[in-house]
Amino acid sequence: MGGVNTPADLRRLPAAELPHLAVELRRFLIETLGRIGGHFAANLGTVELTLALHRVLDTPHDRVVWDVGHQSYPHKIVTGRRARLETIRKLGGLAPFNHRAESDYDAFGVGHSSTAISAAAGMAAGARVRGEKRRAVAVIGDGGMTGGMAFEALNHAGHAGLDMLVIYNDNDMSISENVGGLRDHSARLVQKLGLVAPHLVRLPQDGEDRVETHLDNPGALFRTFGFHYTGPIDGHDLDALTSALEKLKDARGPQLLHVITVKGKGFTPAEADPIKYHGVTQFDPVTGAFPAKKPAGAPSYTQVFGDWLCETAARDERIVAITPAMREGSGLVDFAKRFPDRYFDVGIAEQHAVTFSAGLACEGLKPVCAIYSTFLQRGYDQLVHDVAIQNLPVVFAIDRGGLVGADGATHHGAFDLSYLRCIPNLVIMAPSDENECRRMLATGIAHTGPSAVRYPRGNGKGLPKEAEPKPLAIGKGCLVREAKGRRLPRVALLAFGCMVENALRVADILDATVADMRFVKPIDAELVLELANESDLLVTIEDNARMGGAGSAVNEVLVAQHHKVQVLNLGLPDHFIEHGTREELLAQCGLDDAGILRAIQKRLRARDLDESKVRQA
Amino acid sequence: MGGVNTPADLRRLPAAELPHLAVELRRFLIETLGRIGGHFAANLGTVELTLALHRVLDTPHDRVVWDVGHQSYPHKIVTGRRARLETIRKLGGLAPFNHRAESDYDAFGVGHSSTAISAAAGMAAGARVRGEKRRAVAVIGDGGMTGGMAFEALNHAGHAGLDMLVIYNDNDMSISENVGGLRDHSARLVQKLGLVAPHLVRLPQDGEDRVETHLDNPGALFRTFGFHYTGPIDGHDLDALTSALEKLKDARGPQLLHVITVKGKGFTPAEADPIKYHGVTQFDPVTGAFPAKKPAGAPSYTQVFGDWLCETAARDERIVAITPAMREGSGLVDFAKRFPDRYFDVGIAEQHAVTFSAGLACEGLKPVCAIYSTFLQRGYDQLVHDVAIQNLPVVFAIDRGGLVGADGATHHGAFDLSYLRCIPNLVIMAPSDENECRRMLATGIAHTGPSAVRYPRGNGKGLPKEAEPKPLAIGKGCLVREAKGRRLPRVALLAFGCMVENALRVADILDATVADMRFVKPIDAELVLELANESDLLVTIEDNARMGGAGSAVNEVLVAQHHKVQVLNLGLPDHFIEHGTREELLAQCGLDDAGILRAIQKRLRARDLDESKVRQA
Repeated sequence: MGGVNTPADLRRLPAAELPHLAVELRRFLIETLGRIGGHFAANLGTVELTLALHRVLDTPHDRVVWDVGHQSYPHKIVTGRRARLETIRKLGGLAPFNHRAESDYDAFGVGHSSTAISAAAGMAAGARVRGEKRRAVAVIGDGGMTGGMAFEALNHAGHAGLDMLVIYNDNDMSISENVGGLRDHSARLVQKLGLVAPHLVRLPQDGEDRVETHLDNPGALFRTFGFHYTGPIDGHDLDALTSALEKLKDARGPQLLHVITVKGKGFTPAEADPIKYHGVTQFDPVTGAFPAKKPAGAPSYTQVFGDWLCETAARDERIVAITPAMREGSGLVDFAKRFPDRYFDVGIAEQHAVTFSAGLACEGLKPVCAIYSTFLQRGYDQLVHDVAIQNLPVVFAIDRGGLVGADGATHHGAFDLSYLRCIPNLVIMAPSDENECRRMLATGIAHTGPSAVRYPRGNGKGLPKEAEPKPLAIGKGCLVREAKGRRLPRVALLAFGCMVENALRVADILDATVADMRFVKPIDAELVLELANESDLLVTIEDNARMGGAGSAVNEVLVAQHHKVQVLNLGLPDHFIEHGTREELLAQCGLDDAGILRAIQKRLRARDLDESKVRQA
Repeated sequence: MGGVNTPADLRRLPAAELPHLAVELRRFLIETLGRIGGHFAANLGTVELTLALHRVLDTPHDRVVWDVGHQSYPHKIVTGRRARLETIRKLGGLAPFNHRAESDYDAFGVGHSSTAISAAAGMAAGARVRGEKRRAVAVIGDGGMTGGMAFEALNHAGHAGLDMLVIYNDNDMSISENVGGLRDHSARLVQKLGLVAPHLVRLPQDGEDRVETHLDNPGALFRTFGFHYTGPIDGHDLDALTSALEKLKDARGPQLLHVITVKGKGFTPAEADPIKYHGVTQFDPVTGAFPAKKPAGAPSYTQVFGDWLCETAARDERIVAITPAMREGSGLVDFAKRFPDRYFDVGIAEQHAVTFSAGLACEGLKPVCAIYSTFLQRGYDQLVHDVAIQNLPVVFAIDRGGLVGADGATHHGAFDLSYLRCIPNLVIMAPSDENECRRMLATGIAHTGPSAVRYPRGNGKGLPKEAEPKPLAIGKGCLVREAKGRRLPRVALLAFGCMVENALRVADILDATVADMRFVKPIDAELVLELANESDLLVTIEDNARMGGAGSAVNEVLVAQHHKVQVLNLGLPDHFIEHGTREELLAQCGLDDAGILRAIQKRLRARDLDESKVRQA
């Protein structure tokens, strides 16, 4: 494998060498990811497909778009990035997903699912408009295929008759188990064909365009949209793959190749439990064993949410929970077990998740819709229309608000406070610790309209759990530290969510007052003005884009009253932030303690805020 | 028909009377809408379906969710709102679409397409959780079915085995002609069955669940998702409809009934040209003739955009245009005719439209993606990820920014400046007249990254057209009026987009300075500070939510520099705004000349801005 670093190398290799290369690639993946962690199981499933694609197609002139990109490590390896694989997801290292700036072979930047067919369709249409001979291929999993935009793309590309190939990588898994009618259908098919036993698979012969089964024709769905269907074939059989691709690469019109793969293929522990091995930290490359867990620290906000949900659901039978395919990530494993009838995994389908929640609310239930901040961008219109306009009591449990770390630019929850704040009727909360998180969720349940509780990736403070959390007064923040001395200038920190913790530490140095604002909307105007009256400088601190965020709400209050207090808005800068640890990125953005302190001190120096001037004023 | 005002009346009517009622309902629709205008052709297509649904089901206990709602006038009429139909879309009158606050029979508020299956699925799941016997029905058109979230909902509901009925109202029309592979498939089917000639249609007999055809099984698509398929049946045959509904109303599991209807049914001119009669102002109820057009006034911004696009495309072959099913509304009719190979109507599929545009941009083209402000909410995540993160040069032509009038709360473009402003890399422009609109579009084309030009519903000023518009300097506003006298306090109006016109008139009264800010992002900080230095009060004026909008950008600049000038932010208030004329609604929001003047005068009185105090300062 040492010799195969580019697709050109790969194309020169004798065909008989390919299976060895596949074995070596897998070993390299197991060894490297066992050591450094990262997305894992999906990559073992795409080894052969990656080799076949780069061998048969003329990449990067031909475009291959990988949906989501967490299965594209083999692609990174064979396109010149092998030596840097161990930097993946680290600050300054390889990007977690495909990234156009990183390689010409990364035809499209990805991160969220279900975009690949649309992007490849655009490329196919672009080649047609420009009169260029250029192939466009989208590789999309059965999980990604549950996202509505994949169907929008199939419907359009089929109608437009674009020359493109969709490879439907069917491993019967989303990050959790895949769900949905389409998946059920496909699972019956796979079972029938015994497709996990590759010897039962055969390629369609000349004149056939499908392998007949006793089930409904598996290609009917795709044919309905105007695609020519081939398959299913065994996605770990290099001969089958290369010969299918050779046949389809210059076929006219919209083509779909149905490939059956095994998530975790070639590593027994991962095949047996692909959910556990979807994304990993470290593991033993021989046994798959994970290192002994560190003694349990403070629970993560995800766990805090999951626990609260189960407790509350046990008391209140109106509680139902909705997730777009993020049972594990959103902390819903226990709820799903304990309350299976009130648990709805709708697939990777955020739009539907939101409106489905609204429908449940219409029937007097209290839906808790758990969506990561970044994924809620997918259900924005539905949140505005189906929830907020109708003022329905849906509680959005928004995990991964702020910077998320290694998943990078596509996954930071950097914009939610801005895009949510403009929506009428919506109450927006951000907790500073676990108990406040629980009280905010309780506030949402008690509220008669829509609400959102937005919490970060990572752990709480390890506080003892307050039983039966009481709802908060809506729109009221609270003082958590009062300046002790009479040092001038007087500084008050107005912190939102997890930034309260940093604010408290910085305040100890400056002897500043600190408010835990709690509510981004409605903002506590009274508290803002009170602090403005008794301070020389207000500092707003949030881990959201400065533009239009929580600090902007504070500005609006002050401007409306023409309060002359000085204000410093701290938050995320106006550029996309790449990957790294959460701590590294916060520091980069000036939102660690040192950065916050530095910014305040700079402002104090720059703006006539030295003690003598303040005293005169 | 006088006697039928509620579903109870309808249920008491002898079956033989129903066809007469249908005829009378149509007459009433034709007469009323001929007089007052409104959504028209779709309503003629749902007369029989409406009667059958309310007759067979126990509404409002059973839930019927109409997708979009522009076809629900018959439903409004038979649920107690007949006498008020002529107030529809008017200030204080009936809502343009279904609206929960208006009637218990409006199970779900709608406006944007493709939500009905999700909402009804939520209701079906809600009834199951609560152990209630309650039916849930979604009525969705073939246009709405091209929206991805409809598939998300089918996939989930099919898998979950929800007891619900989807009525697929297939009239082969979106607002424009429907497009997509699914439509092509359906069209072949209809042609084959001769379904527009109702005598060829028959209901499935016992034991059959479909009418066989020589085509692929029409139900295969829906069956793949786990739905039981019935149909197609003639949607204008009351017997066929009632008997199908009787059979399906208590059927277990996810059911789909495929109904073929004719948009405009029963009114020859509308059947012949359903696009023209989709939404109407007034027409002759006998001939269908529209009143003679008023002498052409100033062109609408929609026309300005369409003209610019054709002119530019003639010079620059990189220009391609993308619309999610809004050819007419977005002013793309001429472009579609003149440049069919560079025109892409992708169906009602905003998510795909945005990412498809990104794909085209990857191939060196200059995609102009024309989406109404309100519909762009559907493609928000795609705009962030697929366009902005990758910094691809897609130009968003955002029509219907601000208040749109009669279409009401679901259609106002009230939030775009807020939800777009937080996105890095994006240039956001708002023109104050037609020529500026053309120059801004040219600026977008010349720019190497993503941009958005956001213009209002309605007409420009009728200015002579500037040929070959030159790009503007990015991030630069301009002074359009300088205060002439030396009146104190000195007021400067910082106006965005169409609000510049109002600002100029108000400035004449106050002798204020007016800036046409042009760019919402990047905001012209230099100009803001210059005006701040020479004014006592800055007034920001925009037709977007005040929260996080353009005014908020001005605040951020001033706060960052701690400028002590007073600021008044004018914009849309923090509640949803219902329907009415654009003028009425602007007045309601205080954004007409009188409202702007009143707000400024109030601020001048309230905030120490009288001449003597200002002079002292």
